[in-house]
Amino acid sequence: MQKKPLILVTNDDGITAPGLRTLIHIMNEIGNVVVVAPDSPQSAMGHAITINSTLYSNAVKIDDGPQKEYSCSGTPADCVKLAVNEILERKPDLCVSGINHGSNSSINVIYSGTMSAAVEAGIENIPSIGFSLCDYAIEANFEPVKEYVKTITIAALKNGIPKDTVLNVNFPRLPKEEIRGIKICRQARATWMEEFDKRTNPLGKEYYWLTGKFVNLDKGEDTDEWALAHGYISVVPVQFDLTAHHTIQDLNTWNLND
Amino acid sequence: MQKKPLILVTNDDGITAPGLRTLIHIMNEIGNVVVVAPDSPQSAMGHAITINSTLYSNAVKIDDGPQKEYSCSGTPADCVKLAVNEILERKPDLCVSGINHGSNSSINVIYSGTMSAAVEAGIENIPSIGFSLCDYAIEANFEPVKEYVKTITIAALKNGIPKDTVLNVNFPRLPKEEIRGIKICRQARATWMEEFDKRTNPLGKEYYWLTGKFVNLDKGEDTDEWALAHGYISVVPVQFDLTAHHTIQDLNTWNLND
Repeated sequence: MQKKPLILVTNDDGITAPGLRTLIHIMNEIGNVVVVAPDSPQSAMGHAITINSTLYSNAVKIDDGPQKEYSCSGTPADCVKLAVNEILERKPDLCVSGINHGSNSSINVIYSGTMSAAVEAGIENIPSIGFSLCDYAIEANFEPVKEYVKTITIAALKNGIPKDTVLNVNFPRLPKEEIRGIKICRQARATWMEEFDKRTNPLGKEYYWLTGKFVNLDKGEDTDEWALAHGYISVVPVQFDLTAHHTIQDLNTWNLND
Repeated sequence: MQKKPLILVTNDDGITAPGLRTLIHIMNEIGNVVVVAPDSPQSAMGHAITINSTLYSNAVKIDDGPQKEYSCSGTPADCVKLAVNEILERKPDLCVSGINHGSNSSINVIYSGTMSAAVEAGIENIPSIGFSLCDYAIEANFEPVKEYVKTITIAALKNGIPKDTVLNVNFPRLPKEEIRGIKICRQARATWMEEFDKRTNPLGKEYYWLTGKFVNLDKGEDTDEWALAHGYISVVPVQFDLTAHHTIQDLNTWNLND
């Protein structure tokens, strides 16, 4: 009989988030689960790591189940580093991050704490998947996506995620019967149109809240945005070699050494 | 006569950092400069943005010169968003970030606040370059690289940076006469071997400092690490489409919908 896989579970919404709790319950059916997650919400933290401050970690037990749980005072990427180097007895067979309350499709992957944890695991050569549901609400309904999380995770363990790649999985906010299936996609070309909400504090000083509108600039039907808008679950393979290889020839024509 | 370009200057070491001051002086020779930089150091912030807190900005004047300067309470990516949407009268012709005190070559690009500012500008369709010197010291000597910063910036304005790409420029820590030239490179495959320094605080509670050792796993002679180790300045074109396009065919063989 094959040994159960060791699965590291993390997120960016914090260790008490319902999305993380859902993910833990699903992973308990697949392997031996260790949770190392931020002790407070860390959304939009990108790939921040803590180098100018200290990190704390506490063994905790938030709800029932066989999983071991640790909270960490750092960012999602810190959680993965601390888990791998100080908490886990061996390198995990898989890292899963999420389920995020909110979309990490297209350009959101860059800002996402959920995906930064997944990418950090990938950099450390651990197969890794980030899961996100396109619903920012704390009371988001994760029931419709549970079975798909399990399917994708088991397929990843069986087939092996391609080298130097992590999976970015986004679920549309739909009842289960309206989800049309899973699509392998590319990241849509999109941006945020920022709008700063300018206010005045009680002392008379101006300050800003960052807000904005997501704009999809990509008409392709092979993108994550297209898939999600049409009732599909999107799976985008994400790499951390950021080199724009196709531009190197062009840049060499600049003759910078002349 | 051509109009002078409008240049946005930012960084992650903070608005008083000597590397930023050097970059401002160089850019004053090329265009009209507006500085929007963090009011405190923001190293290793990755692509974090501030969505759960407020942002403040102040007009400041740190040293001589025609540049306009603003400090911002947020991350490097926040600085670019605030500059473009609230401070600048028009979209800048170029954004330059740095000169960072420390390397942002290979995998460091992922953690880098300097590069996140440059990438944020790129996402907003602004030609953009991040500059870093492989010397973490506050008293790092930027003299040897000044001429190269100017050469690369003028070439970028003249030729145009390829679409959806930003330049990641790293300088070796060498006297000027030992710098062998500029190389267009790919990002080396590398990682950090973390070591957590575990200590006990005055109240008896354990805490950690994140430390680590950089390990280059890549023997290629076309990488940024090779270039820097051999006395060259590395220029890596960086993209923010993270899709691992070459793996999509493989992932489709998983038949996730069966």
